[in-house]
Amino acid sequence: MKAKAAVLEQFNEPLAFREFDVQPLAEGEVLVKIAAAGVCGSDVHMWRGKDPRTPLPIILGHEGVGFVADTGGEKRGLLGRVLRPGDKVVWERGVMCGKCYYCVVRKEPSLCPNRKTYGISLSCAEPPHLRGCYAEYLHLKAGAHLIRIDDDIDPAVLVAASCSGATAAHAVEVSRVRPGDVALVVGPGPLGLFAVAFALKAGASRVYVAGTEADRSRLALAEQFGAAGTLCLVDTTPDERRQFLLDVTGGVGPNVVIDCSGSVRAIEENLPLVASGGTYSIPGIAEPRDLLSVDLFAWLARKNVGLQGVWVSDTDHLWQAVQLVLSRAYPFEKLVTHAFPLADAMRGLEAVEKCEAVKAVLKP
Amino acid sequence: MKAKAAVLEQFNEPLAFREFDVQPLAEGEVLVKIAAAGVCGSDVHMWRGKDPRTPLPIILGHEGVGFVADTGGEKRGLLGRVLRPGDKVVWERGVMCGKCYYCVVRKEPSLCPNRKTYGISLSCAEPPHLRGCYAEYLHLKAGAHLIRIDDDIDPAVLVAASCSGATAAHAVEVSRVRPGDVALVVGPGPLGLFAVAFALKAGASRVYVAGTEADRSRLALAEQFGAAGTLCLVDTTPDERRQFLLDVTGGVGPNVVIDCSGSVRAIEENLPLVASGGTYSIPGIAEPRDLLSVDLFAWLARKNVGLQGVWVSDTDHLWQAVQLVLSRAYPFEKLVTHAFPLADAMRGLEAVEKCEAVKAVLKP
Amino acid sequence: MKAKAAVLEQFNEPLAFREFDVQPLAEGEVLVKIAAAGVCGSDVHMWRGKDPRTPLPIILGHEGVGFVADTGGEKRGLLGRVLRPGDKVVWERGVMCGKCYYCVVRKEPSLCPNRKTYGISLSCAEPPHLRGCYAEYLHLKAGAHLIRIDDDIDPAVLVAASCSGATAAHAVEVSRVRPGDVALVVGPGPLGLFAVAFALKAGASRVYVAGTEADRSRLALAEQFGAAGTLCLVDTTPDERRQFLLDVTGGVGPNVVIDCSGSVRAIEENLPLVASGGTYSIPGIAEPRDLLSVDLFAWLARKNVGLQGVWVSDTDHLWQAVQLVLSRAYPFEKLVTHAFPLADAMRGLEAVEKCEAVKAVLKP
Amino acid sequence: MKAKAAVLEQFNEPLAFREFDVQPLAEGEVLVKIAAAGVCGSDVHMWRGKDPRTPLPIILGHEGVGFVADTGGEKRGLLGRVLRPGDKVVWERGVMCGKCYYCVVRKEPSLCPNRKTYGISLSCAEPPHLRGCYAEYLHLKAGAHLIRIDDDIDPAVLVAASCSGATAAHAVEVSRVRPGDVALVVGPGPLGLFAVAFALKAGASRVYVAGTEADRSRLALAEQFGAAGTLCLVDTTPDERRQFLLDVTGGVGPNVVIDCSGSVRAIEENLPLVASGGTYSIPGIAEPRDLLSVDLFAWLARKNVGLQGVWVSDTDHLWQAVQLVLSRAYPFEKLVTHAFPLADAMRGLEAVEKCEAVKAVLKP
Repeated sequence: MKAKAAVLEQFNEPLAFREFDVQPLAEGEVLVKIAAAGVCGSDVHMWRGKDPRTPLPIILGHEGVGFVADTGGEKRGLLGRVLRPGDKVVWERGVMCGKCYYCVVRKEPSLCPNRKTYGISLSCAEPPHLRGCYAEYLHLKAGAHLIRIDDDIDPAVLVAASCSGATAAHAVEVSRVRPGDVALVVGPGPLGLFAVAFALKAGASRVYVAGTEADRSRLALAEQFGAAGTLCLVDTTPDERRQFLLDVTGGVGPNVVIDCSGSVRAIEENLPLVASGGTYSIPGIAEPRDLLSVDLFAWLARKNVGLQGVWVSDTDHLWQAVQLVLSRAYPFEKLVTHAFPLADAMRGLEAVEKCEAVKAVLKP
Repeated sequence: MKAKAAVLEQFNEPLAFREFDVQPLAEGEVLVKIAAAGVCGSDVHMWRGKDPRTPLPIILGHEGVGFVADTGGEKRGLLGRVLRPGDKVVWERGVMCGKCYYCVVRKEPSLCPNRKTYGISLSCAEPPHLRGCYAEYLHLKAGAHLIRIDDDIDPAVLVAASCSGATAAHAVEVSRVRPGDVALVVGPGPLGLFAVAFALKAGASRVYVAGTEADRSRLALAEQFGAAGTLCLVDTTPDERRQFLLDVTGGVGPNVVIDCSGSVRAIEENLPLVASGGTYSIPGIAEPRDLLSVDLFAWLARKNVGLQGVWVSDTDHLWQAVQLVLSRAYPFEKLVTHAFPLADAMRGLEAVEKCEAVKAVLKP
Repeated sequence: MKAKAAVLEQFNEPLAFREFDVQPLAEGEVLVKIAAAGVCGSDVHMWRGKDPRTPLPIILGHEGVGFVADTGGEKRGLLGRVLRPGDKVVWERGVMCGKCYYCVVRKEPSLCPNRKTYGISLSCAEPPHLRGCYAEYLHLKAGAHLIRIDDDIDPAVLVAASCSGATAAHAVEVSRVRPGDVALVVGPGPLGLFAVAFALKAGASRVYVAGTEADRSRLALAEQFGAAGTLCLVDTTPDERRQFLLDVTGGVGPNVVIDCSGSVRAIEENLPLVASGGTYSIPGIAEPRDLLSVDLFAWLARKNVGLQGVWVSDTDHLWQAVQLVLSRAYPFEKLVTHAFPLADAMRGLEAVEKCEAVKAVLKP
Repeated sequence: MKAKAAVLEQFNEPLAFREFDVQPLAEGEVLVKIAAAGVCGSDVHMWRGKDPRTPLPIILGHEGVGFVADTGGEKRGLLGRVLRPGDKVVWERGVMCGKCYYCVVRKEPSLCPNRKTYGISLSCAEPPHLRGCYAEYLHLKAGAHLIRIDDDIDPAVLVAASCSGATAAHAVEVSRVRPGDVALVVGPGPLGLFAVAFALKAGASRVYVAGTEADRSRLALAEQFGAAGTLCLVDTTPDERRQFLLDVTGGVGPNVVIDCSGSVRAIEENLPLVASGGTYSIPGIAEPRDLLSVDLFAWLARKNVGLQGVWVSDTDHLWQAVQLVLSRAYPFEKLVTHAFPLADAMRGLEAVEKCEAVKAVLKP
């Protein structure tokens, strides 16, 4: 059997469409027929060569939902049920070693030093080649964690759970939201919209969302996700935003800020506003940034505030994101603003690069 | 100034309507004009003499919402704003000492050995008499914790937050819900309906609710609160309920059970079903019950399960309950099925005793 | 190569000494030369046939420390260093699947439904036979978690960390000790002595220990582990013990009880004494027991107390136990009261059955 | 009755010795005869005028241990026992309002916006004057939290628990130490030495301590508190320290750093070394400092690390510190290197300013 895939061979050049021989499955491996692959902002970064460690050639795509095509021997999903051809599945995008300090002692496999990611750090140069989701088939490693989806949900709606959703779950977990808290989410892309929903699910009574001019339609969407209010940077001055956030919190500031913008300026603006005892988490920082000058006394020490890093996610967070989407309590179907056939993968990258799409998916 | 109040003078006899002189306020005390008082199941218990420690005579009513009538000197709400006549307020129903091990070391003031409760353990025999909410005015002690409500919400809708809501917040807190968990709430009265909402807010992906024949309309209301499904005891056998709960959880059982029923039989039925690693909390046990025979190995040890007591609540939980109602994310207005003038307090007690009401309120 | 092992072929009969061919190692497997194997109370239970699910024939022994004899390809310890022949190692005694809900979502692999244990649930009937520690060599599965021990500690001293120590770590973890708490440990065997040390390490200011007549020397050892006082059941009445525990806690009772005795009577005696807000954990319940009649109101609900099961342990707990022993802060060398050559394994079982030993080890 | 006190009337001038009339006690107030007052580094700062908000005139001294001289009516200690003249006591140095959001909802009274501190923010200008510990008597407010000490411990040994000890407890609490972790404490003054002990009590398997030339004798003392090793800045280069910390942690770095030095350079050196998933807390930052340039990606985001502020402490932490000292598990008696009569208070300030003392106490 052959499988087509969109391959990044040279940075900044159009993806190449190649055909690979599907390889036989070893014990525990799974072949998945991709139903929908997500185009993530980091795919654009990789295509642009902003992460020069990217192993070329590579099939992009670390977000995906699909159907089991075949399994190497008996393979079970997370809940112990045997997987059969045709089962709809999502899977953990990270490949962790499962036997290091971070995997089994600290139980934070997102920090596993041996972690690799489909579509990000696994090249297609060697067999079995099919290690990214911009393809007809994905060849999963033996230890893969799969969740069988019995629900009839559209795969395209679930696809963002596999990366943005899981990372948002992780960010909210480390943000120590307490019931009744007020949260601010900065950056209303897929990560931020999931963060709105997860912050509410973690007990926040109200979530406000801040975004740029380019985010205007996303801010409107944030309100449909339950945001209590939004702030657009072009309509307001920093002072007005500060005053607004104090007004809506009885003068104490937001208890939690989840900054999905990756912008150092956003941190400079908002970190000083966190309520005493609160947390500022930065899931949006995924690559090196300019240094941030921190007023240790006024911003952190005097107020017992924590500035908290967030690195990717693990299967626990994927599980949370999948349950959240399946609960139908939030309009995740509205996240998917663009869908393209696999052959138009470049249009997907462009729609994301230009911020036209909230979430774009490819359907092989 | 005089204030009317409904006084329990003899168990099982109609409440007596008495007039008391409103006393001058000492420093820090607050006089509240009651806008709505809740009729709680435990009011019925007290009236029936089931708790013989009840100090007679007593003005019943520990749930209430009202307006500031006067303050003894400058008095501030939780967020530091000065309270003025006319401000809508709720308050912590418990009076804690604020300086014992439980109040200041363990920070669980619900366990304060000096805790007293308006309408439950403070008699009206001595001045200032007005220590319960079945009255025109309530005279709050100097250390009272008040939350000013700027929202235009109907006081009757907020009233259940001050007892059932706060207790449900406490129950969910000790139940250690994890994001994505499946929860079962047993007993869909006001406590149980708040527990449904709080379990969802604590991250549960789905909440199921079980109730008796008398709970049928409450089960329907539970679905409006977001319950994923309900189980009525007269329509199903224990085996069918067990099978249902296994089916909807992929065979593992509910991760969390919050038992608001106070029924030992319910615990016998449901404790064995808790998923490994889960928690069974019992906020419904508020008075002595028959002994429960526990299979330590099969129900707890083999599965890492905890059986967890929950005793009343504190101001943190009250805050959570108020924020939850004000968030408008759940139809709490539907909880209030009956409202009576204060003069008809007996009708309120009857509506609750006969399970006709979900929540009945008195409006002085 | 051949390896000798002590095999349980028939319940209640002397172990048989057999020789097995050492099998070649598959990728990731490890052959360990056993330096010391612990004789655990559950070994006696298995030998006596009290757990009829025991797969016969079986090489007993789930506690062990040894030296790497060979590895199937490159194999790394938890901290990422390549394991070489001669390295001193301990390993997780449980074999978990690493891809189920409990392993990767809940991160409680002790609850993995596919969990097997060397020396408990893996028979020696099939190759590679060497699946227990009462042997010259142990053949570990490919996913095994190994900790390399660079310290020159005597293997016999470390051996109890691999089962009792890890389980005690787990028990203390779920017991929610708060800094300054007073704890009571019931049953001062290896599990209980580790629990004393872990409770102190978890912040307990004082730990008291209760034991039976047979535990008298163990109670003396508990004081060397830092116990603030001990209670021997033959020297005191239940009322005296109750009064003692109230006296030393200013009248509130112990905040935490860790019951390693497995005795239902001990729970009946001590559960009512737990301080409000405290936890009673039962790591000693490892097999079915008589039912416990629980006064839900007085023992749990009225006091916010939790009764908490504890099932085995995982690699996190093993890590903690190893670090604790290596810290040299507690006299674990005194735990090892008896050592026998492998050929005298029966004497080891007898010393444990008769409570003569605190910990007995076999040295192949 | 008259009471002598050492009063700061002008910055940088010798303290003046004044006599005040002891005022009558209102309900709930307590008059304490000071047995030992601690000289804290911040007393020196105040004397030097480095905190110009200091209300002059003021009796310095926020650390103290004493004996009850009299009480305003019946007054009880934290455990509910009535306080009688002659009882040895310590007390919470902060005066919190007990009814704001931080006191009763968030339960972090160290963040109470109304918090005042004896000896720091309460002037002696107005009656009852005696609001600091550099005096024969201290007049405590009605809501004071007191712990009765039945132990015969020397008051001078306990005195540091009331400020450094409590703050260290708070720092370790927010540092999220996990059992088996390796910790680094920077700055081995009283705060740092308490942090060593608390980190060990919180489960750290090993604690390393770094200090300056002036700290040399304190580093030796740290080893007596259980430090696994020490680093003196004059004996080592930053690279050597970095290599040492990687070597002793198997290459991963310390999981937790508790920085009691208040030095921005120390943070620049050590924050990059924190292990993935770890926490860097900064209890040493008690006044404004230079800005810290943070590499958000490399130091925090990529590693899931948190940079965490710590502000003072509350009664929970005081309780922990008192229990820790009373446990006799650490040589706190060696902390007290200097003792002076109250009349020599200036010598105490000098001994602390010159780093001659670890802890200096005044004995009125």
